[in-house]
Amino acid sequence: MNPSIPRWNPDESPLEVAERVAKALAETAVQRDQSGGTAKRERDLLRESGLLSLAIPRELGGWGAAWPEVFAVVRRIARVDGSVGHVFGFQHLLLATLRLFAEPSQWQPWFEQTAKNSWFWGNALNPLDQRTALRWDGEHGRIDGEKSFCSGALDSDMLVVSAIDQGTQKLVIGAIPTSRAGITLREDWDCFGQRQTDSGSSRFEDVRISRHELLTVPGPLGSTFASLRPCIAQLVLANIYVGIAQGAFDAGRTYTSEHGKPWFTSGVSRASEDPYVLRTLGELWTDLEAARALTDEAARSLEASWQRGDALTREERGATAVAIATAKVQSTRSGLEVASRVFEVMGARATAGKARLDRFWRNLRVHTLHDPVDYKLRDLGAWALLGEPPKPSFYS
Amino acid sequence: MNPSIPRWNPDESPLEVAERVAKALAETAVQRDQSGGTAKRERDLLRESGLLSLAIPRELGGWGAAWPEVFAVVRRIARVDGSVGHVFGFQHLLLATLRLFAEPSQWQPWFEQTAKNSWFWGNALNPLDQRTALRWDGEHGRIDGEKSFCSGALDSDMLVVSAIDQGTQKLVIGAIPTSRAGITLREDWDCFGQRQTDSGSSRFEDVRISRHELLTVPGPLGSTFASLRPCIAQLVLANIYVGIAQGAFDAGRTYTSEHGKPWFTSGVSRASEDPYVLRTLGELWTDLEAARALTDEAARSLEASWQRGDALTREERGATAVAIATAKVQSTRSGLEVASRVFEVMGARATAGKARLDRFWRNLRVHTLHDPVDYKLRDLGAWALLGEPPKPSFYS
Amino acid sequence: MNPSIPRWNPDESPLEVAERVAKALAETAVQRDQSGGTAKRERDLLRESGLLSLAIPRELGGWGAAWPEVFAVVRRIARVDGSVGHVFGFQHLLLATLRLFAEPSQWQPWFEQTAKNSWFWGNALNPLDQRTALRWDGEHGRIDGEKSFCSGALDSDMLVVSAIDQGTQKLVIGAIPTSRAGITLREDWDCFGQRQTDSGSSRFEDVRISRHELLTVPGPLGSTFASLRPCIAQLVLANIYVGIAQGAFDAGRTYTSEHGKPWFTSGVSRASEDPYVLRTLGELWTDLEAARALTDEAARSLEASWQRGDALTREERGATAVAIATAKVQSTRSGLEVASRVFEVMGARATAGKARLDRFWRNLRVHTLHDPVDYKLRDLGAWALLGEPPKPSFYS
Amino acid sequence: MNPSIPRWNPDESPLEVAERVAKALAETAVQRDQSGGTAKRERDLLRESGLLSLAIPRELGGWGAAWPEVFAVVRRIARVDGSVGHVFGFQHLLLATLRLFAEPSQWQPWFEQTAKNSWFWGNALNPLDQRTALRWDGEHGRIDGEKSFCSGALDSDMLVVSAIDQGTQKLVIGAIPTSRAGITLREDWDCFGQRQTDSGSSRFEDVRISRHELLTVPGPLGSTFASLRPCIAQLVLANIYVGIAQGAFDAGRTYTSEHGKPWFTSGVSRASEDPYVLRTLGELWTDLEAARALTDEAARSLEASWQRGDALTREERGATAVAIATAKVQSTRSGLEVASRVFEVMGARATAGKARLDRFWRNLRVHTLHDPVDYKLRDLGAWALLGEPPKPSFYS
Repeated sequence: MNPSIPRWNPDESPLEVAERVAKALAETAVQRDQSGGTAKRERDLLRESGLLSLAIPRELGGWGAAWPEVFAVVRRIARVDGSVGHVFGFQHLLLATLRLFAEPSQWQPWFEQTAKNSWFWGNALNPLDQRTALRWDGEHGRIDGEKSFCSGALDSDMLVVSAIDQGTQKLVIGAIPTSRAGITLREDWDCFGQRQTDSGSSRFEDVRISRHELLTVPGPLGSTFASLRPCIAQLVLANIYVGIAQGAFDAGRTYTSEHGKPWFTSGVSRASEDPYVLRTLGELWTDLEAARALTDEAARSLEASWQRGDALTREERGATAVAIATAKVQSTRSGLEVASRVFEVMGARATAGKARLDRFWRNLRVHTLHDPVDYKLRDLGAWALLGEPPKPSFYS
Repeated sequence: MNPSIPRWNPDESPLEVAERVAKALAETAVQRDQSGGTAKRERDLLRESGLLSLAIPRELGGWGAAWPEVFAVVRRIARVDGSVGHVFGFQHLLLATLRLFAEPSQWQPWFEQTAKNSWFWGNALNPLDQRTALRWDGEHGRIDGEKSFCSGALDSDMLVVSAIDQGTQKLVIGAIPTSRAGITLREDWDCFGQRQTDSGSSRFEDVRISRHELLTVPGPLGSTFASLRPCIAQLVLANIYVGIAQGAFDAGRTYTSEHGKPWFTSGVSRASEDPYVLRTLGELWTDLEAARALTDEAARSLEASWQRGDALTREERGATAVAIATAKVQSTRSGLEVASRVFEVMGARATAGKARLDRFWRNLRVHTLHDPVDYKLRDLGAWALLGEPPKPSFYS
Repeated sequence: MNPSIPRWNPDESPLEVAERVAKALAETAVQRDQSGGTAKRERDLLRESGLLSLAIPRELGGWGAAWPEVFAVVRRIARVDGSVGHVFGFQHLLLATLRLFAEPSQWQPWFEQTAKNSWFWGNALNPLDQRTALRWDGEHGRIDGEKSFCSGALDSDMLVVSAIDQGTQKLVIGAIPTSRAGITLREDWDCFGQRQTDSGSSRFEDVRISRHELLTVPGPLGSTFASLRPCIAQLVLANIYVGIAQGAFDAGRTYTSEHGKPWFTSGVSRASEDPYVLRTLGELWTDLEAARALTDEAARSLEASWQRGDALTREERGATAVAIATAKVQSTRSGLEVASRVFEVMGARATAGKARLDRFWRNLRVHTLHDPVDYKLRDLGAWALLGEPPKPSFYS
Repeated sequence: MNPSIPRWNPDESPLEVAERVAKALAETAVQRDQSGGTAKRERDLLRESGLLSLAIPRELGGWGAAWPEVFAVVRRIARVDGSVGHVFGFQHLLLATLRLFAEPSQWQPWFEQTAKNSWFWGNALNPLDQRTALRWDGEHGRIDGEKSFCSGALDSDMLVVSAIDQGTQKLVIGAIPTSRAGITLREDWDCFGQRQTDSGSSRFEDVRISRHELLTVPGPLGSTFASLRPCIAQLVLANIYVGIAQGAFDAGRTYTSEHGKPWFTSGVSRASEDPYVLRTLGELWTDLEAARALTDEAARSLEASWQRGDALTREERGATAVAIATAKVQSTRSGLEVASRVFEVMGARATAGKARLDRFWRNLRVHTLHDPVDYKLRDLGAWALLGEPPKPSFYS
């Protein structure tokens, strides 16, 4: 990373920077979908762009972007590259995790260093995988065990890790340098979609952690405000889904304009005049817009709740959680529909292997399984019927 | 109507007034769905409420509400009564028609008198029905012929009428008192839904019309700004659809809370704990929210275009038209789905005749046929593929 | 009823007779959908037609039709009249109930008399409503209490009733003349669909029943063969759904041929050339065919199981139950879709009140709520995943 | 191929043989989906199995299977391997092409030799690609040009080719050995699905063809009976779709049984008890059964039409074409739905790259684009509305 590149440029908006980054990512997205592995060059591009500090307050060296802007940038990246969109989206989630679960004396220096050094944060937090144990030896903690689904941990500068405290049997979360002794990040992520998220497994062997590296005040979901963390996580996902679906739609539009052929019984001379091509695109457009509009609304709701800080009430948090769950359900439905049906507009030749246009569906199919949509629907039904907001957990 | 009732009360918002009106309408909505006919008492209630002047500028005696607020009120009314929601929504459409197609010297007095006298405007404009002819006899025009789908014409104070000028063979539109000699409004509206919209037929026999009653400058769709008229019409429809669907959802929620019974193999003791009841409600909630969010966005887009006045460009108008078409498609899809499937939450006993809970589907099914959703999808596909905004017509 | 009309005419097939009956029913179906109440004339028409004995063996005076033929006739009737189709379908269900739950010495005479006297059987069996109690006074039983959803009980000649035996607390089922003292059948059925099924409530006051009138050997679901009863019930429903949906499709086809108008921007001169009209009809056709084919298959499966008699195994019964559940789910989905969307082919004018074309959706919406489709899906999922056939109950 | 293997074994049914072949194919299907290329070993396995002669009459050395049995075997193969299912299905299509377009003196020897030598037939017929030209030089024809989508041409023994006769400008079809001089079959098929169908391109350079190798009596679609060819082609596709979808469902069932985990808020201890897992499987089961039932029905209809031979009327052919089009639409819809949604049952870990469970969707997505489903729906709509059967072409 070139340290001379300014973090925050008053002459260029985050979306303008993202536009440049997206163009660069697009050039190699197809090849990298094939190869999988760590998107090292692309991660460095993000480091250089300064966008890793997008959500960090200006007084700590960042851009100070509000959530709607943060998500717009995440979506722009995901539109050309679902995997990089994912790890980039998680950067902001992990920073928010520090902000929500720890004390200012902890997160402020981390934020400043992130802005200054363009730290990329990685995830080793999966709370459903409880194989990592924390033991105390006087002042020093030691973490041992395995952790799965560690998105973006490889090539990260800092890690957010979770473990079960063997004394209290509670989940604790900490932040440590990725380079700390005893951490092995495996290059074993090989799903059929989101292939460069490095969401593989890691091993912790006698990894030292200090008390000041633990996020214990207020701790995981430790206050109503802190319980916004899963809301942010879910909305990152929804925006990645919308971004990927927009990418699929872009592909459909471009391909049809450039290569589309009318069916021999259509009676028209161009695919763009075919009544069925137009109708299908109109349906997919509407699907996509429904997801986008709800996701945009949810970002505004999150920002409002975020601004409330510790004054945030359960009702306000609940309304935000519902808006986000709604957006996530719709972006799941719309995304899969668009990514699968868009081929009906393009026709058989669009399935050529080298274009890898199936990657949009593969990316969405993999990522939308993060947590089951049926349980999201159950939450929404309970809200609609009983007025009960989703009970805060790491997934709602 | 009590003329002492103030048009604009600074202490009460339009939505608060609408809330009171809606409660009154709800009391008799079921009975009136059965009887059909003119909702005379309810129309008078709207006259008394002052809400007929909602969109009229304050300087002309109205509330000066912006479009988003106007549509919120329309939707609130439609939520309890689709028919009254329709004629109330058309009030604002018809006033906008005057504003867009005529000169200030024409619409300003009409607006003032509407605000002062709580005039209810009726529709006799259906441009697809070209059986009304206008002939000139020196300064005096005479209209003869039939017109169908004259929503809200019965019990109206003023009428917006259209006819084919026999000289030019063009469509002309005028505004005349409903009481003018020669007009027969038939009580022949009898569809299975939207039963009190009085969308029946009318007969014009040698009906006099003066030149200053014609909306000829800029005339029907006579400028880019004037071509916002169909946009407003379509967005009135979308809001009525959303309102009716919300009414269906309300019914489902209330019924299930009060009368729902769990299925005997469900293993739960209350319908509100049934995983399928909750899931279905979650799906319908999401459907509804998608329609609502897009419809809200479209209202903001319309307001922005409206504020541009004669400076409105074709591109800006196009973007608004697309937003509205998208909202209309989604509210059609969501509305029908919600109104039909909500019974799966309530169960068999909710089909009791006296509750007439089928009215939501009937109202939506009738009203969503106003113009074909497939051609709306075609427009959206052409926009998405070619960047061509919908060509202005009375339906797009 | 004219006793000179032969029950079984070798020169005319049941479907030919049904065709004649259907034509007669069609003439008044619209009017009777409005009036509701008992379809007395139409029930008598069925009595006169001999079709009430369709499933009764020839040696007992009936037509000896196999199940596929029985269901084809039920469907034909439901295609023009969902309500009469329902009570006619239940005739065969109730006769099968006698056959399956009672001894030959009981059902044979009942069958013979049904064939000879054209008895119409009515239903007072709803097993989920346990308000009717049976008490024994020596040899004589007495039934007291209320029973809901008694389809076809009014104007019936014989009733199948259920009650809870106060000694054993078990459900017992019996067959008694409808005219027996103490039975009050209320004309209180008033749902928004299936309006002439007379599925109202009844009251039993000290109604005598003899031991030989009880169906106790093998009794309700008393053997694997006897547990075919709910299979038959569910398949009657599926066939009524398919019939009603076909009626809706017929209406769409006829209306569009006779009155359809192309949309003004369609570029075609007849509705039958509109690409979207054709596409939508193609979709509805496919929906309908999927339901029909599965329902036909299920009838063949039922017939095979029926022919097995007491040799029927649980596995064979299970396969039939799965085929029927699949048909019921598909006919529910397809039916509602066809009955609602067919208006998109016909256009706005098809919603005229006097044609009452909404009745297909209303009939299907009411009837498909008989038992929840979600629990049917759960059964099918358990079958698919675990190989567990649906557990016999009165609904599976 | 071992010539000692009997073509027709009276002790083993075709489905039993297919079962053995399918098991062998299943062992390497995942690896071959990755590698692509020609399935040489698997094609030889089919040669050895004798199943290439499945549809050849017994008197000519084949099994004499009727169409329903042929399709059952095709489906069984496609269930484990969509690509091999495709080329195997096309074997029967190409033999039928000989039978329908040529004289007995032509097809009988070809059939006999196919049975005797286990010839695998390849396709170079794509009628929409008109770049191959036939020129006559006295008695000898010469073919030059390119042809795309030549499924199964590589490793074939015989080829069915088409070209435009430069004299008549009509499409002519012939049958020649694949080894004939001047034919270059390119290994350039590389789509993201159906990766071993070898549906690549070929080049013809001065390729000799004799008059007796041309199928000119009655010629392509040259009689009503001959016009069954596209019906067979379409039904091969429908059966491949059903087979692939069944394969996806099998995977979902097996995976869930063996590896499924309940969601942490589900309240159940096994995935197989999760109400949503069961419900989704029930939906997919129903989707699949609808496609299967219609496809089975279509096969029976085809067989009936086939048996009619030259007596086949246009009406009979039309009814068969409609049944097949209906089956194709439903299997397209159901197949894509099952292959995409089945992951919602299995959960996130089922997306592991090595299992390649996305191959079902990829195979279906590629293959269902063979010809546009919207035009199939248009045909069905025209049939439903006007009674017009699909106009015979190479795609209907």
